[in-house]
Amino acid sequence: MPSNVSLEHNPVVRLSYGLAALGQGDRLIPWTFERRELRPNDIAVKIQFCGVCHSDLHAIRGSSRFPLVPGHEIVGEVTAIGANVRKFQIGDTVVVGTIVDSCGHCSSCKRQLEQYCREGVTTTYDGIDRFDGSITHGGYSNEYVVDTHFTYHMPTGLDPASVAPLLCAGVTTWSSLRQWDVTGKTIGIVGLGGLGHMAVKFAHALGAQVTLFSTSEDKLADAKALGADAAILSTDETQMAAQASRFDFILDTVSDRHPLDPYLRSLKLDGTLCCLGIPKSMDFSPFLLTTGRRRIASSGVGGTLETQEMLDFCGRHNIVADVEVIAAADINEGFERLERGEVRYRLVIDMATLNALPKDAA
Amino acid sequence: MPSNVSLEHNPVVRLSYGLAALGQGDRLIPWTFERRELRPNDIAVKIQFCGVCHSDLHAIRGSSRFPLVPGHEIVGEVTAIGANVRKFQIGDTVVVGTIVDSCGHCSSCKRQLEQYCREGVTTTYDGIDRFDGSITHGGYSNEYVVDTHFTYHMPTGLDPASVAPLLCAGVTTWSSLRQWDVTGKTIGIVGLGGLGHMAVKFAHALGAQVTLFSTSEDKLADAKALGADAAILSTDETQMAAQASRFDFILDTVSDRHPLDPYLRSLKLDGTLCCLGIPKSMDFSPFLLTTGRRRIASSGVGGTLETQEMLDFCGRHNIVADVEVIAAADINEGFERLERGEVRYRLVIDMATLNALPKDAA
Repeated sequence: MPSNVSLEHNPVVRLSYGLAALGQGDRLIPWTFERRELRPNDIAVKIQFCGVCHSDLHAIRGSSRFPLVPGHEIVGEVTAIGANVRKFQIGDTVVVGTIVDSCGHCSSCKRQLEQYCREGVTTTYDGIDRFDGSITHGGYSNEYVVDTHFTYHMPTGLDPASVAPLLCAGVTTWSSLRQWDVTGKTIGIVGLGGLGHMAVKFAHALGAQVTLFSTSEDKLADAKALGADAAILSTDETQMAAQASRFDFILDTVSDRHPLDPYLRSLKLDGTLCCLGIPKSMDFSPFLLTTGRRRIASSGVGGTLETQEMLDFCGRHNIVADVEVIAAADINEGFERLERGEVRYRLVIDMATLNALPKDAA
Repeated sequence: MPSNVSLEHNPVVRLSYGLAALGQGDRLIPWTFERRELRPNDIAVKIQFCGVCHSDLHAIRGSSRFPLVPGHEIVGEVTAIGANVRKFQIGDTVVVGTIVDSCGHCSSCKRQLEQYCREGVTTTYDGIDRFDGSITHGGYSNEYVVDTHFTYHMPTGLDPASVAPLLCAGVTTWSSLRQWDVTGKTIGIVGLGGLGHMAVKFAHALGAQVTLFSTSEDKLADAKALGADAAILSTDETQMAAQASRFDFILDTVSDRHPLDPYLRSLKLDGTLCCLGIPKSMDFSPFLLTTGRRRIASSGVGGTLETQEMLDFCGRHNIVADVEVIAAADINEGFERLERGEVRYRLVIDMATLNALPKDAA
């Protein structure tokens, strides 16, 4: 907490418990901590499910603020509401994603593109609360307290555990596919992980012709089952050469550094390669941009407008993530499987299983 | 010439002379060579002026085909016409640019975006003729023979020497400024050389708010005189920091490798940095794309439609390049000055001065 901020105006706190890394790179263990009492626009959410995102692992290894409670794909039930809250009632099922606050007055926020807030967003975990300067703790826990502007109604008729990943893996790909308006276009999606599998589902439902690129031969059939019209082994140079100048848009969901030239060559004139992973550098030959007036881009998660739009779309089209529900006790093993690429396609923690753990092992 | 191609169907040739590099990296010397006799859609052009482009120097150093006669910013007079030619008459003043042929049937060519021909263009010099397989020789010479599809009428009322650079430096920047539709937008231009000075003139005339970035303090006043609304010393970190998130579009005309992050930071949400130089790699931080949904792009020279559009615009707005006319004998010194950044802003060779040289020193 910055030294000039105090908790004095917020004297009452809510005791919470969850899974935390106490130091950089640590395994997660049960941990008891405090959350703020509700402000007038806040609700308290009893967390039912929380998705396991690759960025959770990155944060544990890369953050400088500990203890760290990850988790930003949250589904839960409203258990308390602040004085001004009209959007939700106690008992509503709600979802919370990666952003819980922003400045609210910059040009991006006014367009409900809060992910591009000029002053920076407050992230769901490992962020700094704009009012009391405390560190935010995420959804690997029993309860979350959140401003209703960044909370959404759960779409009716969908499985709650499978909805959780829509809030990060889902809206991140949705935002790009909508920004570059893939409907009716020939597009490629690179990688079939948490993001990639959502991108295939969305792009297919949005009416794009979808080709999935993967380095794993055993994912090609999966891609077609998920809605891809074609699936290409990206390590096969002959197959890749046949994709030259075919695509209007390619969404690359791979987070590690990898050569981009094969995908740039696959773009038509004026095509865009949008890379959602954020490697240290992007490896490509500049002349491939020049010779096809191609573009390299990236985009962040979705803002509140897009998130609501995506949730509505998922409700209408019955789209959810393919998930595997795990117990809280299995999170560290889950991270190991995630790293080995063994997850198809998203782990979700059943937060009721937190009760089976000791309240605090710290 | 490929071994399966012969000159037999084109037995009559025209003797030409010009300035050639006989080997890689050589100084230019007078050289006599043959050009094809006119095909039905060809004209012969007596060259009056030819611009000196940075890529001429790159070609001399980087090509594998010699002797090499550079030059692709050509102004001259029609001296002969082929059997089918209706577009020009003998005595017309015409201009020729960087492209002299393309496949004519691909999707790019059908849109008159020949610069993106799927089969590759035939360049004005150091290209391979699509009919007889001969190597094309450029405009540092007394005459050019060219298909009228790639030849344009000289705009009336403009100085011929100052028009020559419009055909490469001009249309290359014009094409980008039009593609990203800068009218009414706040844009940046990086570098004030041959391309940059044309970009400033065009962008101003197209109704953009223009800021010029330069590493040379002594070019800042020039930029304003050419039409820039503001000029920023790009080595001044304080001035650069003040440009954050200001620009819809930035056109980077610098050909050497240089850090792109300062320009990416200067782009608004959804802004594009278009780099016309083609360095070996582009040096930037990928997260700057993600955090502002920014794009990096590039584009080539213009096609025939854009070239005509640009020439018409120049005629209406009285726009030409700022040139320094030199004699053919001074070309090697000219290259040295170009490399030292001493040219403001384009050298143009007066081809009448070829006569003062010996016909062939080879």
